[in-house]
Formats: sequence, C-alpha cells, structure tokens
Amino acid sequence: MNPKRREPIRESEFHEWLRSLLPPAEGVTVGIGDDAAVLDASGPVAAACDILVEGVHYDPRETLPAQIGAKAVNRNLSDMAAMGLQPRWLLLSAAIPPGIPEASLKEMVLAMKAAGERFGAVLVGGDTVRSTGPLVLDVTVLGPVGELEPVLRTGAAPGDRILVTGELGGSILGKHLLFTPRVKEGLFLNRRHCPSAMIDVSDGLEMDLFRLLDASRAGALLDGDAIPVSDAARRLAARTGRDPLVHALTDGEDFELLFTLPPERADALLDDPDLFFPVTAIGMVTTADKRAIMINGKEEPLKGEGFDHIF
Amino acid sequence: MNPKRREPIRESEFHEWLRSLLPPAEGVTVGIGDDAAVLDASGPVAAACDILVEGVHYDPRETLPAQIGAKAVNRNLSDMAAMGLQPRWLLLSAAIPPGIPEASLKEMVLAMKAAGERFGAVLVGGDTVRSTGPLVLDVTVLGPVGELEPVLRTGAAPGDRILVTGELGGSILGKHLLFTPRVKEGLFLNRRHCPSAMIDVSDGLEMDLFRLLDASRAGALLDGDAIPVSDAARRLAARTGRDPLVHALTDGEDFELLFTLPPERADALLDDPDLFFPVTAIGMVTTADKRAIMINGKEEPLKGEGFDHIF
Repeated sequence: MNPKRREPIRESEFHEWLRSLLPPAEGVTVGIGDDAAVLDASGPVAAACDILVEGVHYDPRETLPAQIGAKAVNRNLSDMAAMGLQPRWLLLSAAIPPGIPEASLKEMVLAMKAAGERFGAVLVGGDTVRSTGPLVLDVTVLGPVGELEPVLRTGAAPGDRILVTGELGGSILGKHLLFTPRVKEGLFLNRRHCPSAMIDVSDGLEMDLFRLLDASRAGALLDGDAIPVSDAARRLAARTGRDPLVHALTDGEDFELLFTLPPERADALLDDPDLFFPVTAIGMVTTADKRAIMINGKEEPLKGEGFDHIF
Repeated sequence: MNPKRREPIRESEFHEWLRSLLPPAEGVTVGIGDDAAVLDASGPVAAACDILVEGVHYDPRETLPAQIGAKAVNRNLSDMAAMGLQPRWLLLSAAIPPGIPEASLKEMVLAMKAAGERFGAVLVGGDTVRSTGPLVLDVTVLGPVGELEPVLRTGAAPGDRILVTGELGGSILGKHLLFTPRVKEGLFLNRRHCPSAMIDVSDGLEMDLFRLLDASRAGALLDGDAIPVSDAARRLAARTGRDPLVHALTDGEDFELLFTLPPERADALLDDPDLFFPVTAIGMVTTADKRAIMINGKEEPLKGEGFDHIF
C-alpha cells in the first residue's frame, strides 16, 4: 500500500481486496462476492440504514479517512443500540469521488470493518460507484432479534421516567467523530430492564425526545437541573455565548440513548449493581398536551429543536 | 402538491408524508418510523444494496424524477432476481441536494414505491440527508430465502450451457431507464430449472460473465452468432461505427439474467411449455484456461470488458 499512489483504483481490484479481508462469519451463508448476501438470523431481523455525506456530516479538511469510516458505521450501530439489539451484519454502499488515494480508501474501509467488529458486526456486502460530487457512505445494519423484544419508540406512558446515558452537548468539538455507539448499553437495558421506549440522540435531545413522544402519543416534563451537560457543551457555550443547557438540549450527534421506564423499574435500574455506565433521570412522561422543561422553578415550553435536515 | 413550490422541505415533514404512504405489510413487524425496521422472514434472508448517483447513472437534464426513482429500485430488484429470490423489503437512503422541488422528490419516492410493489417489495425504512453535491439514492433490498436455494455465481461447471434472457446492447438509448428487472424470470428459473449459476448483466455481458466464471473457477466459449443483439445495439452501432456485437458484449445496464445449466436441463428449459420469456443459449462453460468467442468460425479471445467504475 503506497500512500502516495494516486492512480485510479479499479472497482474490480478494490472488491477483490475487500473479499480478501473477510473470513467466513457466523450466520453468513453467502458473503461478499455474489449478487446478494445470504444471512441466517434464525428468526426476525432488524434493519436500518444511515447515510454519511462529506461536507454535511464531517469536514473533509479536518477528518481522517479512518474517522470517516468509523463514524459511518458507528452512527448505524447506534440505531441498533436504540432497538436494544445486537448488530450482526453490515452492507456498505460508497459513492467515491475520483482521485481519492487508494491508501485513504483502504484506511476508511478498514476502519469500518474494525468499528463493526468491535461490536460483533461483520461486513457482508455492498456496492461501490464513482461519485460526481462528495464522498457518500451508506451503511445498512442488520441484527437478529433473537430471544429479545426490540425496544420501540412507541411504548412510553404517562408517569414513566425519562432517562439518558452519558452527557450531552457540544459534540461538534470532537465527540461526533469519537463517540462510542451504546450497543452494550442498549443490550444491557433491553435484557435486564426492558425500557418502555428508546431512541438514540442523533439530532439533539429535544428533537429526538419529540420523536419518541410523537411515536408514543405522549408529552414530557424535563428537569432542567438534571440534564447531564457535558464539558464540551460548556466549552462550546463559552464560544457561542449561549447557555450550556441549550447546547445539551439541542446539539446533535451525541449518540447517547434516551429511554423511558416506569418509576419502580427506573429505580431498579439506577440501583442495579451491574450498571456499568452513567444513566441520569431527566424528567417524566406526561399526557400528550405538555412538552416542557423546569428551569429555575419555572416551566418553559420545549420546542423540539435540533438538527432537521432541510433539502 | 404544487410542482412550482421551491421552499425548503423539512426532513421531519417529508418523513411524515412517507409514513402516511405505507400501510402494514406482510412480515413487517415494525416499518418506517423507528430506529430500525423489524422484519420476519421465517428463515434466512438475502440482502443487497445498489447506489445510484446523479451524473453517473443518469443524466439529470434528460431524466424524469419518476425514472430516477424507478431505476434506483429496479437495479436493486435485479440483484434479487439474479439470486432467483423474491424481493420483499426495501430500505432507501437518499442524499438530497438543496433546492430539489418537493413535487420532484415525492414523484421520485412514489416511483420507488411503485417499482418495489410491482414485484412484491415494500419500503420499510431508510434515511434522508442533505447532499452537498449530486443526488445519491442507495437502496437495500431484503428477500426471504424461503423454501428456495439462492442461485449463486459459483456453481457453473465445464460442459454447462450459458444462457441469457432477452436481448443485449445499446441500453443507453433508453432501456437503462425503462428496463424490467427479471424478478419473475429469476424465480421461474430457480423454482423450475435450478440454474447452476446466475448473475444479472449490469456492467456488460463480457464483464458479468467473467465475474460468474471467476466465482466458478471456470472458462467459457461463446458462440458469436448466437448472442441476442438488440435493435438498440444496432442503432447505437450505426452511430458509433462499432460492430453491434461489440455493443451487445460490452454495454452495461441491460439487467438481463445470465445463467448456466447442464445441457439436458438447458434443453428442458428451452422446451418448457410454460417458459414465458425469451432465453437464448449463447455458449458453453469450459475449464478455466479458456475465455473465447467463436466469430466467423474463428476463436477470438474475450477480454472481460464492460463498465468498471474507476474512482
């Protein structure tokens, strides 16, 4: 691998390299190299896709190929985490601009492979084409449901507690490239505590909370003092002049899990001696008419703000 | 729907419209609107993805939104046809450039939906983002294997006949947008005649034949007089000054099925009274050292030419 090589890369050679990387894997009857992969989930499968675009999801001047590849896969694994399921197979589609160095392309793919394998998901197929514009990576993840129940967005009920993993806000300062998808956390929550609803925070706490509430036909009252505001949110706030809490509520790409549990089960989770990650109770599910946050003893309306792509 | 509207389209509103289009469907436990779709295939599933890029796979100045959408899905269904399987579920990822009229976007999605439903495949999820460049559509298709065996590329053996559906060449004159994915043909072939190997002709007969032969570690001798040269190949040849046969051998995007069968089973297929589509025997599988075509009684070497994306 010569990092200075800028000769064109042929799709056929690139595919051969890809195939050589991938040994047989569990449940993969047919892997890369045929018209489709054939996968044996021994039951229902969950499937999700996430598309990453150069210049939208990352700044190409400041992002390493390995970071791009890892982000593309980790965003996708986060969807499976939000279902409380095990990701097992990945399909990768890439639209590749001309002139990308072969070494960069391979670093990117190796990072995708590593990001998947870190959480038990292997590459089983995909498609590569030339792009006339930015690099576009679309990853499809498939996960067997197995003996679990997928955790949907629809099950939150008035009275449930609202909880979140980790800390929020300011991910643009670095976490958006370096985050860990909460696959293990999602599986732990699903296996041991059965959240009534769950979603990953990809477009901002408020916006993703609204999605969960819309799906559950419910409302919420958040406790402004309880929101786990990250150091990054504070640092970013020092630059933007906004309140760190606003960053925690509306910044995207934290990829933490936002979920709901009836009060007694929320207490059981918070008291679980095996709980291996930070979880914070940040509010309560209400009837659908209310969407508010308590700040300094006063109820302020929530607007559901966050990152809404506008085409 | 106002075709003149050029106001920005919000992702959230677009998703709501999408959800409203899609009724519950067989095997879809969870459809659009959660972190992942949950699908029940009652057994193994085949999965493939295909990415379509504006300016690479179609000329935006000459292509209607409905044609773009249909092509994106039909290419993808063709992969499932090449496995001899029933496509059932589609995931759609779209990177959408700013300023695309809402009516065009909706026409495109409705065409994707219709293209899928024509062959029994429903939209169950996806992702939409803003693009900084061309429109990119990536479609993932999933199909239950059911009681069938997937037809792989790997099973061609010396002595097998090589057959192809339909006619080849010159698809750029129109068929590349208007082709019918050979889903019914693929299922018919798999159910009744069990091809030893099969692939769809997406990048040209020679190149896709080479892929099948590489996978099967075999060679081939084609009969130049037998290749079903399309009218479009002849019309294109009149413009390019090349031999129509060259267009039939190397033009991409015909999306016909290329497959192999032992001689007696090839005869049985050609004599099958229920055969409802044109099939032509075009040559024979040989040992791996030979890749040639008989033209005017002379063996010419095949080079495996076709459309190889160069990045």
